[in-house]
Amino acid sequence: MNPSKTPYQELEDRFERLAKLGQALGVLQWDMACNMPAGGAEARSAQLSTLKVMGHELITDPALADFLDAAEADRTLNPWQQANLTAMRRRRVRALAIDADLVRRVSEAGAACEMLWRDAKAKADFKAIVPALTEVRDLVLERAEALSAALGLDSYDALLDGFEPDARAAAIAPVFADLAAFLPGFTDDVLARQEAAGPLLALPGPFDLAAQRKLCRLMMEAVGFDFDHGRLDESHHPFCGGVPEDIRITTRYSEDDFMPGLMGVLHETGHALYEQGLPAEWRYRPVGRARGMVLHESQSLLVEMQACRSAEFIAFAAPRMREAFGGSGPAWEAGNIHRHYTWVERGFIRVDADEVTYPAHVILRFRLESAMLAGDLAINDLPGAWAEGMEELLGLTPPDDALGCLQDIHWYDGAWGYFPTYTLGAMAASQLFAAARRARPEIPDALARGDFTPLMGWLRENIHRKASSRSTDQLLEEATGSVLDATAFKAHLQSRYLA
Amino acid sequence: MNPSKTPYQELEDRFERLAKLGQALGVLQWDMACNMPAGGAEARSAQLSTLKVMGHELITDPALADFLDAAEADRTLNPWQQANLTAMRRRRVRALAIDADLVRRVSEAGAACEMLWRDAKAKADFKAIVPALTEVRDLVLERAEALSAALGLDSYDALLDGFEPDARAAAIAPVFADLAAFLPGFTDDVLARQEAAGPLLALPGPFDLAAQRKLCRLMMEAVGFDFDHGRLDESHHPFCGGVPEDIRITTRYSEDDFMPGLMGVLHETGHALYEQGLPAEWRYRPVGRARGMVLHESQSLLVEMQACRSAEFIAFAAPRMREAFGGSGPAWEAGNIHRHYTWVERGFIRVDADEVTYPAHVILRFRLESAMLAGDLAINDLPGAWAEGMEELLGLTPPDDALGCLQDIHWYDGAWGYFPTYTLGAMAASQLFAAARRARPEIPDALARGDFTPLMGWLRENIHRKASSRSTDQLLEEATGSVLDATAFKAHLQSRYLA
Repeated sequence: MNPSKTPYQELEDRFERLAKLGQALGVLQWDMACNMPAGGAEARSAQLSTLKVMGHELITDPALADFLDAAEADRTLNPWQQANLTAMRRRRVRALAIDADLVRRVSEAGAACEMLWRDAKAKADFKAIVPALTEVRDLVLERAEALSAALGLDSYDALLDGFEPDARAAAIAPVFADLAAFLPGFTDDVLARQEAAGPLLALPGPFDLAAQRKLCRLMMEAVGFDFDHGRLDESHHPFCGGVPEDIRITTRYSEDDFMPGLMGVLHETGHALYEQGLPAEWRYRPVGRARGMVLHESQSLLVEMQACRSAEFIAFAAPRMREAFGGSGPAWEAGNIHRHYTWVERGFIRVDADEVTYPAHVILRFRLESAMLAGDLAINDLPGAWAEGMEELLGLTPPDDALGCLQDIHWYDGAWGYFPTYTLGAMAASQLFAAARRARPEIPDALARGDFTPLMGWLRENIHRKASSRSTDQLLEEATGSVLDATAFKAHLQSRYLA
Repeated sequence: MNPSKTPYQELEDRFERLAKLGQALGVLQWDMACNMPAGGAEARSAQLSTLKVMGHELITDPALADFLDAAEADRTLNPWQQANLTAMRRRRVRALAIDADLVRRVSEAGAACEMLWRDAKAKADFKAIVPALTEVRDLVLERAEALSAALGLDSYDALLDGFEPDARAAAIAPVFADLAAFLPGFTDDVLARQEAAGPLLALPGPFDLAAQRKLCRLMMEAVGFDFDHGRLDESHHPFCGGVPEDIRITTRYSEDDFMPGLMGVLHETGHALYEQGLPAEWRYRPVGRARGMVLHESQSLLVEMQACRSAEFIAFAAPRMREAFGGSGPAWEAGNIHRHYTWVERGFIRVDADEVTYPAHVILRFRLESAMLAGDLAINDLPGAWAEGMEELLGLTPPDDALGCLQDIHWYDGAWGYFPTYTLGAMAASQLFAAARRARPEIPDALARGDFTPLMGWLRENIHRKASSRSTDQLLEEATGSVLDATAFKAHLQSRYLA
C-alpha cells in the first residue's frame, strides 16, 4: 500500500482497475456477438476467461481484507463513499464465497449444456438434455449453498441477490400470487373487449432492411440515445452492451415485420439510456453502476412498454413509419398500429408475450426453479409440472417441450434466479412512469411530439444519476413515494386495456 | 509457484496469460479504429492503459527472475523451448530496463505531439511542432539510453532491436549506401524505358464501393485468406490487427481509383497470412509469434509487390476487374493494368512511392533519425537536412514541409528506429520470392490462375511455421541459402523494370 493513500483510496484504485477490466470484457463480448468469425471462438473464449480470472484475483486478493476493515471504520466518508464501500464488500463476499474451481465447473457445465440444449430444443427432445441439466442444477445448487453460507440467505435468495441486491423470494411470492390471481380474469376481459373492437388490419411486408435501420436510428434519437457515445448493430440475440461512454445496442430485423425489431431497439435504448445517464463522477466505482436487474429492466420497459407503446408516442411514430416504408391506408393509421403494439394474446412463448400475459410466464418459471432447487421437483418431472402450470396460469398446454420448458436458455446455461427480475422490472416501470407523469404532467403531450426530454430529465434525476447509492426500494420510494409493489402495474394495465 | 510445475512450465503459464492479455488489447485496438464512436475514446484509452499496465506488471514480476534462471539451467529443454526462453528473457530485459514512469512519459509526449502534428502538417508549419518534437526526441533518447545500458547496444540499435531483433545500424548502413548508389542511375534507366513505351491509359472512375469490396474479398480468397478466421473492414489507416485465429484486415476505398485500395488489401493479406500460418501448437508462447517487423513486412511485400504486381497475377486479376466495374477497351487490358501497378515516378510522399523509389525515402529517414538521436542534427535543422537529402537521393526539393519532414507520423508519435524495416522487408521479400520460385517452379503459372497454393505452401513451411524459433538471418539462410542482403532485391528490380 502506498502510505500517502487512505485505505478507502487504495480500494478505489483497485476497484477502478477491476472496472476497467470489466469494460474491456464488455467490448470483447459485444465484438463476439457482432463481428467475430466462427473460427475466432476458441481464442476469444481464452481472452475472456483470462480477464475474468484476473478480475477474480483482484477482488479476492487477501490484501483487500485490511483495507475494507480500515475503510469501514473511517468516519469521514460521505454517504456515497459509504455506499461505494458497501458495494465493494458485497462483491468481495460473493467472490470469496465460491472457489475458482467451482466457478469454472459451473461455467463449463453451463456452456456444455447450452450446446446440447440448442439441439434438444430444435428436436423438442427434453429427455436428451436431462443429464446435462441435472448437472447444471447440481452445480448451481452447490454454488447457491456456498453463497448461502457466506451471505446468510436461503439458497434461492443467494442466487436472486446476485442479479438484484436485496430481492427475496419471500417478498416476491405474495406479489406473484396476487398477480396470478388477478391476471386470468383480467386477461379474459381484455380479450373480450379486444374482440369486440374488431380484427387487426395487417401491415403487409416485405419491409426494406435499410429503411428499418434508418427508422430505428431516428426513433433512438428521439428517445435521447447519444450516437457520439454508442452504436446500433445487429446480432442474433438483441442486447445492450459496451460501456457507459460507448454503449452498443444490437437488434435483429425481419423483412416480414418491422414492428418487433423497432420495439426491440426501443427496449434496448431504455437500458442504454440508464447506462449513459449514470454519474460520470462515479465512473469506475461500484456505487456508480446500475443498481440491479430490476431497475435495469424497469428502464427498458419504461421506454418500450410505458412510453413507446402509448397512444401518444404511436401518434408521433405512425407518420414516420408510413414515410419509411411508403405505407398508406387504414392499416397504417396510428390507431391500428397502436392496436398492433398493444395486442394481447395468450401464447406459449415468453419472449413473444405481451405485457398482460408476460407475468404468467415469469411466475411459472419462478415457481419451477424454486422447486427444482429445493429438491421438490425432479428434473425428469419438469415437462409435466410445466404443462400443469401453463394450464393453471394461461389455460394452455404446450404441444411439445420446444414450446414449453425448452424455450428459454436460462436454466440450461446456469442463470437460475434471474426470471423474477423481468416482472419486478415491469412493476417498477409502471410505478416510475406514473410518478414521472405526476411530477411532469407535460410528458404525454411531449411524447406525442416525439420529445422525451421531460421524461428522461425526470429519470436522469431520480434514477440514473443516483446509480447504486441507495437500494432499489429506497430509490423507488424517493422517486415514487412507495417501495416496489404491483399497484401501479395493475393500474397501468387497467388503464391501457380496459379504460 | 506450484510445486508440480517446472520453472519452465511456470514461465509458460505466465507468458500465456500475458499473450491472452495482448490478444484482448488487439481486439480493443481494432474496435477503436473500426467501430468506436468518438465519445468512447477516453474510456477506451483507460481500458487499453489498464491492460498494458497489468501486462507490464506480469513481465516485471520479481518472481520471474528465479524461474528464468532455473529454466535456463534446465538441460532437458528442446530447441523450440530454448528459443521460447530466449524470447521471454528478451522481453523481460526490455521491460525491466525502462521504468513505468518513463514509459508513461514517452507515451503521453508522443500522444500530445501527434495531436499537434496533425495540425502542423495540415498547415505545413514545422516551426509550430519543434518544441513538442524536441520533447519526444529527448524522451525517446532517454528510453534508448536506458535500453542501451541494459542490452549493451548503441542507443539507435536499442530502438531498432525492439522492432527487429538483432538488426544493427552498422550492418544496415553499408546496404543502404549500396542502394543509395545504385538506385538513382537505375531509376533514370527505368524512367527512360517507361517513357519510351508510351503513356499510361487512364482507368476512369467512379468505382462503386460495393463492387470494390467484393473484388477485394475475391482476391483475398485467391491469396488464401481464411474468412472463417478473419474479417475485412474499413478504417482511416489500413492495418492488419486482431489475433491469429481472428485476423482483422482494414482498408480504405476511394471512388476515384480502385487500384490502391485493392493493392492495400493484398498487402495486409500478406501480413494476415503470416499470422494465420503461425504454429498453433506454440500459440500464446513468445516463440510462436512472428519473428519481427522485417519478416512481417517481407510477407506483406511478397504478396503485394512480388506476387500481386507480377504480370502473371495481373493476367488473372484483369478480367475480374473488368467484370467488377464493367470495364472494357484497351485501358482495361492486363498489359495496361500491369503498367499502372508497376509505374515508377519520383515523388515526395513515401506511402505513395513505387518499389523502385521507396528505398530512397527510407534511407533518408534512417540517416536523419540516426543523426537526430546522436545529437548531430538539431530538430530545427531537420527541414534543411531533409531537402538536402531528397535532392541527393531523389533529385527533388519539397515545396513545403507537409510534403517533406511532416509527412510521416513515426517521429511525432515516438516510433523512432522503425523505418529501416520497410526496406529490409522489401529485400527479404525478394530473396524469399526468388527462393520460392527456385523450389517450386510452378509458382508463376499458378499465380496466372490465381492459385497461391504453391507459394503459400512454401512460405508456410519455410517461414510461417518456424515463427520465432530462429533469428531472421537463420530463417532466411535456411529458406534462401543466404542471410539478408540486397542482391535479390536488385535482381528483382532489374528483371521487372529493365529486362
